[in-house]
Amino acid sequence: MPIANSVVAFSLAPALASPTQRFNPRLATSSFTSPQLQRSPDRARSTQRRAVLVTIQMAVDLAVMVNGVPGNMAAATAEEVVRRGLVLADEALTGPGVANSHFEAGGSKVSLSTPEDHTACLKRMKDKYPRLIVVDYTHPSAANPNVENYAKAGLSFVIGTTGGNVDDMKKAVDKSSDVYAVIAPNMGKQIVAFQAMMDMMANEFPGAFKGYKITVKESHQATKADTSGTAKAVVNSFSRLGLDFDVEDIEKVREASRSMREMQVPEEYITAGHAFHTYHLTSPDGSVNFEFQHNVCGRGVYAAGTVDAVQFLDKQKEKGDSTRLFNMIDILRIGGMS
Amino acid sequence: MPIANSVVAFSLAPALASPTQRFNPRLATSSFTSPQLQRSPDRARSTQRRAVLVTIQMAVDLAVMVNGVPGNMAAATAEEVVRRGLVLADEALTGPGVANSHFEAGGSKVSLSTPEDHTACLKRMKDKYPRLIVVDYTHPSAANPNVENYAKAGLSFVIGTTGGNVDDMKKAVDKSSDVYAVIAPNMGKQIVAFQAMMDMMANEFPGAFKGYKITVKESHQATKADTSGTAKAVVNSFSRLGLDFDVEDIEKVREASRSMREMQVPEEYITAGHAFHTYHLTSPDGSVNFEFQHNVCGRGVYAAGTVDAVQFLDKQKEKGDSTRLFNMIDILRIGGMS
Repeated sequence: MPIANSVVAFSLAPALASPTQRFNPRLATSSFTSPQLQRSPDRARSTQRRAVLVTIQMAVDLAVMVNGVPGNMAAATAEEVVRRGLVLADEALTGPGVANSHFEAGGSKVSLSTPEDHTACLKRMKDKYPRLIVVDYTHPSAANPNVENYAKAGLSFVIGTTGGNVDDMKKAVDKSSDVYAVIAPNMGKQIVAFQAMMDMMANEFPGAFKGYKITVKESHQATKADTSGTAKAVVNSFSRLGLDFDVEDIEKVREASRSMREMQVPEEYITAGHAFHTYHLTSPDGSVNFEFQHNVCGRGVYAAGTVDAVQFLDKQKEKGDSTRLFNMIDILRIGGMS
Repeated sequence: MPIANSVVAFSLAPALASPTQRFNPRLATSSFTSPQLQRSPDRARSTQRRAVLVTIQMAVDLAVMVNGVPGNMAAATAEEVVRRGLVLADEALTGPGVANSHFEAGGSKVSLSTPEDHTACLKRMKDKYPRLIVVDYTHPSAANPNVENYAKAGLSFVIGTTGGNVDDMKKAVDKSSDVYAVIAPNMGKQIVAFQAMMDMMANEFPGAFKGYKITVKESHQATKADTSGTAKAVVNSFSRLGLDFDVEDIEKVREASRSMREMQVPEEYITAGHAFHTYHLTSPDGSVNFEFQHNVCGRGVYAAGTVDAVQFLDKQKEKGDSTRLFNMIDILRIGGMS
């Protein structure tokens, strides 16, 4: 349990260890004395030497360790953490070859921990921030070793990094009884909702668009070589809706001029990062047309979704939810019900 | 059960009356002799007087009576019936004050029956077409009396006419044990699927678009005075998704020039009938935009959906489905699973 580092609480821990009596420092409203101290005056006196008056902090703030800064997504997430008034942990894991030793987001300074220091760094952060959630936007090759380390350290985490082995991540969560995690390939809540909606429609009404023709066009910054994963997922739904279309038929737009002219991407996001998608469906006789667009500029929506995931995870952990592994659809679903 | 009018089948009926042994003339592949005839030579001889050799038609064609011609939707449906190679019943109910006595669709002639003849006309059609489904695109004021008549005549029906009392229609179906019906305010299958999809998203992910701004614009022919019912239904879903929007805020476009310029309605459908809808969603910081469009020219999609409903109803009737009342969502759902 996250006990505030600044208060001496170890002498109380055994009395509060039963699961039905989980101690929650965030809910503590005033100082209190151990029931053991009240029951046994002799024992109490000796304990009092170590903890005469145990004062519990009114609330322990949620802190977020954002690993992967100064990378783009990690940086955007760190800024969102500060913007929402959460505590940004003052150290972060970074990969080999990162020259910077510090990073700053919204006035909060973060020291960067290089690979040989990672294990020690996680321990320091866990000790310093009793209510800590880790965010990982590192490198695909680092995601799995990082997850193993988070789990070993007993730290709950949100994985935004894509490309790792998700099954292995899930196993690591299963093995660590107090670790909660969100693993999601796309952190943009509304984009995920749209994608899930198309999937639901395909499940509910298979073949509803049989005979329709479809064109799919996506524009991203020129540095993105592969086809949009979201477009691929949506096209999969369309196939089940009866449309004859293959992911190979998705039109990738990577030229600035076409992105601006055909997809209306604002010039400032041509290289800064954008994700524009247009799906156009036409009935066999041409009399019916559907168009679905989801157009994202920059990384704000993903950073916001990531911090939503952090806050969600923190809540589930506090509740002691028996489910410990989530994706963004769980968050959309459970989030809406709370 | 629909037994072909042209073949003498009454002597076999009792032997085939058990529900597990329902006689299906459409599945009959050749002439056959009653098992009773084979077992009891004496009885067989007397029966043979009435039915020496019972030949079953290879198939009884599905016939569709389209009431409401020469009205636009009824006319489009009659044409779709012929286009699909189904039999168009040669009589149809029409309202008072319709001057025409005949209507023609795709080369099939239809005599129009005026109100005083309606009951007799339904009986004639039922006798003439053993496998008949009725479509109703009449007048809102006629829909309920018509439904009562269909139910009394034991005719299954599809109601495309909107504005009647749906509860009363449902009661009429409940009372008539062999009558199946589809009652749907919108026959456009794909439009209904889109509407249902938004509804599902709102159920699954309430509040997922909280803070987003939305604009809704719909264009229809100038003769349509009220706001699009589909737009209203979709806006209701958006409200549950967390958007602050009222049906009053839907922008109605009814001027030809704006319809063409702002919504890209083709000129030939400005007065001929169109239903164009654009929903635009913007995130609080403006970085994320969603757009959903469904644009319909003419009545083809509704006529196609109506005939889909007819064919669906015919199948359910043949199966003897215990559910007898359906809407378009049922058709999308069950239709896809078959």
